Amino acid sequence: MEIALLGGTGDIGEGLALRWARDTDHTVVVGSRDSEKATHRADDYRTLLDERGVEHDVIGVDNETATERADVVVLSVPPEYAVSTVETVSNGLTSDDVLVSPAVSMDRDGAGFHATPPEDGSVAQAVAGAAPDVPVVGAFQNLAAGALSDLDTELRTDTVVTGDDPEATALVRSLAEEIDGLRALDGGPLAVTALVESVTPLLINLAMNNEGMHDLGVRFQ
Amino acid sequence: MEIALLGGTGDIGEGLALRWARDTDHTVVVGSRDSEKATHRADDYRTLLDERGVEHDVIGVDNETATERADVVVLSVPPEYAVSTVETVSNGLTSDDVLVSPAVSMDRDGAGFHATPPEDGSVAQAVAGAAPDVPVVGAFQNLAAGALSDLDTELRTDTVVTGDDPEATALVRSLAEEIDGLRALDGGPLAVTALVESVTPLLINLAMNNEGMHDLGVRFQ
Repeated sequence: MEIALLGGTGDIGEGLALRWARDTDHTVVVGSRDSEKATHRADDYRTLLDERGVEHDVIGVDNETATERADVVVLSVPPEYAVSTVETVSNGLTSDDVLVSPAVSMDRDGAGFHATPPEDGSVAQAVAGAAPDVPVVGAFQNLAAGALSDLDTELRTDTVVTGDDPEATALVRSLAEEIDGLRALDGGPLAVTALVESVTPLLINLAMNNEGMHDLGVRFQ
Repeated sequence: MEIALLGGTGDIGEGLALRWARDTDHTVVVGSRDSEKATHRADDYRTLLDERGVEHDVIGVDNETATERADVVVLSVPPEYAVSTVETVSNGLTSDDVLVSPAVSMDRDGAGFHATPPEDGSVAQAVAGAAPDVPVVGAFQNLAAGALSDLDTELRTDTVVTGDDPEATALVRSLAEEIDGLRALDGGPLAVTALVESVTPLLINLAMNNEGMHDLGVRFQ
């Protein structure tokens, strides 16, 4: 299977790319608006995985090409670019693809971070509005980017997967669980994704306010 | 110290009463609108703790008397009664007391449970608006009532404590951590409590959608 990470050159995209490349046989397609940046970043990821003696299959291309190739497209871009990125790559999307929304909209004031969901209710629902013919799945919102991209960190964390297409959500849950130490839980339909997205600012507030806590994830038990 | 649980005859109030009675030397004051109901319920709790050979100090009185006696007052009532309960007991509240808000406002539709915070932003902030002279602390929102009130269940769960008065939040964190297996984290000021309250409908959705998961709590790690 080919998994594209649009915006796969930064933050959560880097960690997902490295983990999928290390832990699975899938082809990881690092996408960027700038194909040269994508190529360079894919080189970096390959070097890092080579140093660990890990077999991998990572390529870097522009977002449009990444979308055309891939079966699963992860929108690992900042939330304000989620909808515009979908619009940019829409020619490459078909109803057989799965679009994954890991972005979270939040802002910060003196009290800390707050959730600032878009009018649609959640970033995932805004993405679904922009791609009405493609199954959209919410996932990976609550993973700590730092822990994810540090392959020496053993994960023991959950991701909540939401969506309205049972096949698509099952596929994303399965891809998530192929990452060592990641457990994927069924959060229900896309309409309740706001609850998942709002865990992320909570995690940041907890990291800010509690000594010794950083790169926090969440575990439901 | 005396801890009052207003609405301590049901749900989360029962579990907190039993756990504090079992795990600490504090006086647990079970409050209810109906003093007879409070007395009976306190009897039940004492019987249950006696059967376990646990020393305890539990009494049952009406909410007003409970508030007058107690140093810490937990509003373990349904969210729609949180503000009216504060108004009822306000004569017994002083600025030396601490008011704790564990309630969560949510509703359910076909997709599952959603957070429905009041206009103030969170139940805790609505409570603070109704008791402007008393330090208000948000805590205990994400505990599973079933697990909490079953003393055979070993907790291994977190509660996020929010508030604007450092002494009051420190006191509530300390009381929370006196319950075996409960870890209290600093969530920041009261203004970010909505993030904590919205974890509760997420926990219920996860319990509904994932086989073998029930009485879920949350752990940040």
